[in-house]
Amino acid sequence: MIDYSKLCIHTVTTKAWDIWTAIEKFDAAGIGGITVWRQALDGQDIEKVGHTIRASNIEIVSLCRGGFFPAQHLGGLDAAIADNQQAVREAAELGAPMVVLVCGAIPGQSLQKSRDQIIAGIRAVLPVAESLGVKLAIEPLHPMYADDRSAINTMESANDVCDEIDHPLVGIALDVYHVWWDPNLEREIARCAAADRLFAYHICDWKTPTTDLLNDRGLMGEGCIDLPRMRKLVEKYGFTGFHEVEIFSDHWWSREPDSFLAEIQQSWNQHC
Amino acid sequence: MIDYSKLCIHTVTTKAWDIWTAIEKFDAAGIGGITVWRQALDGQDIEKVGHTIRASNIEIVSLCRGGFFPAQHLGGLDAAIADNQQAVREAAELGAPMVVLVCGAIPGQSLQKSRDQIIAGIRAVLPVAESLGVKLAIEPLHPMYADDRSAINTMESANDVCDEIDHPLVGIALDVYHVWWDPNLEREIARCAAADRLFAYHICDWKTPTTDLLNDRGLMGEGCIDLPRMRKLVEKYGFTGFHEVEIFSDHWWSREPDSFLAEIQQSWNQHC
Repeated sequence: MIDYSKLCIHTVTTKAWDIWTAIEKFDAAGIGGITVWRQALDGQDIEKVGHTIRASNIEIVSLCRGGFFPAQHLGGLDAAIADNQQAVREAAELGAPMVVLVCGAIPGQSLQKSRDQIIAGIRAVLPVAESLGVKLAIEPLHPMYADDRSAINTMESANDVCDEIDHPLVGIALDVYHVWWDPNLEREIARCAAADRLFAYHICDWKTPTTDLLNDRGLMGEGCIDLPRMRKLVEKYGFTGFHEVEIFSDHWWSREPDSFLAEIQQSWNQHC
Repeated sequence: MIDYSKLCIHTVTTKAWDIWTAIEKFDAAGIGGITVWRQALDGQDIEKVGHTIRASNIEIVSLCRGGFFPAQHLGGLDAAIADNQQAVREAAELGAPMVVLVCGAIPGQSLQKSRDQIIAGIRAVLPVAESLGVKLAIEPLHPMYADDRSAINTMESANDVCDEIDHPLVGIALDVYHVWWDPNLEREIARCAAADRLFAYHICDWKTPTTDLLNDRGLMGEGCIDLPRMRKLVEKYGFTGFHEVEIFSDHWWSREPDSFLAEIQQSWNQHC
């Protein structure tokens, strides 16, 4: 009997299932954790979703996602702050301890200006996060997303932003897809962990060739990421949390989700 | 009359033209420099090509490209070294002062091991490079190419490799496409220039969205790269060389090359 209690799946990974089906399927498969994407909550009673997940003995790992702070006009930053405050409230309603942030970027705006707006945005969300006890996890995104998805593209940059904000509720979600290539990875994981801010660990794989920048992520084992090394690195510095499977893939999304879930479990067991 | 004497074009950018046509067209347009790709020399008398370019008052900026040292078997590294020695001899025959290196990577092999093989490979090529007076320019490639194209993905990593090799003929070709996103860019350009190893400056643009990882580069001005800032950065640290237009683009390659050349000149004049 394989223990899947440390395995967490993002609802977007099996997005063909509505939230109720995902809960039922993950529960039946013995999956220990779930990260809920906000899309999966659209039109649902969020408290009831949270209650149902907890009643199934599945742990709610995080709510995905907030962020996208940078804006060319002041009203845009205000709207992003309001949306992130709302995400924090949704996390609290759901019973999720954390909101993951894809921080945002604006093509043609300097990355430094975007980072300043991200810092201002997170600071403006913090009072709501504090009052509800919800953590904010900055996810550094691969440099190929620096144009319009995130101005924070390395663990070093995420650590720098966390240092500047300097708040115990603000930390980092490390996704191997975004950071596996970085020569400074171990140094920055150590720095992150030493500051008690390594909040989450996301897994998938990098395929060769990758045919689409957004939706061609691999299942663990399909690509070139040294997942055992990644796991050792985060565990070496004290991480004991979930392994969260977050796969955007037109290929896998076109498959029957029951068999995809079985493949996720098998590949996690074999490669992670 | 606009001065295009600092503008250089890579033959791959206008790859529909054979080398003789490219020389004639660049000359007629007043372009100051050419970087010759080895494919353009296939089956040609290399010395005659070099002579023809110089007779047209076009400067030969570099030969592209060597590299691809990493290999899973020893014979592979030996073959790569032999090919790079051959590239250096071709550069000397052509009269090019430099060979640009896309250093290589092997999916699933650790990037550190690939870097060690790259260093060993460059060292093995250096005696031939020294005897012919040809420089070797490491081009750090965007992290999205860390799987199978280069294990050197930042200016910092390229500087580290150059420090380790520590030879005046080994330097760096900076391509804005690969490094524009890097928060440490200025620091590493300064470091590179201080060591007299900023050998080349390649330009194009990063489009939003980018629909293909390899062949969807933008013409300058089509994307989000702050090209005036890039130019200021390299010039601030003493770079006075060519601006080399290297564009891989199925879109632009499908266009009529005469009008593409005119657009390159216009966009360089306007955006760079």
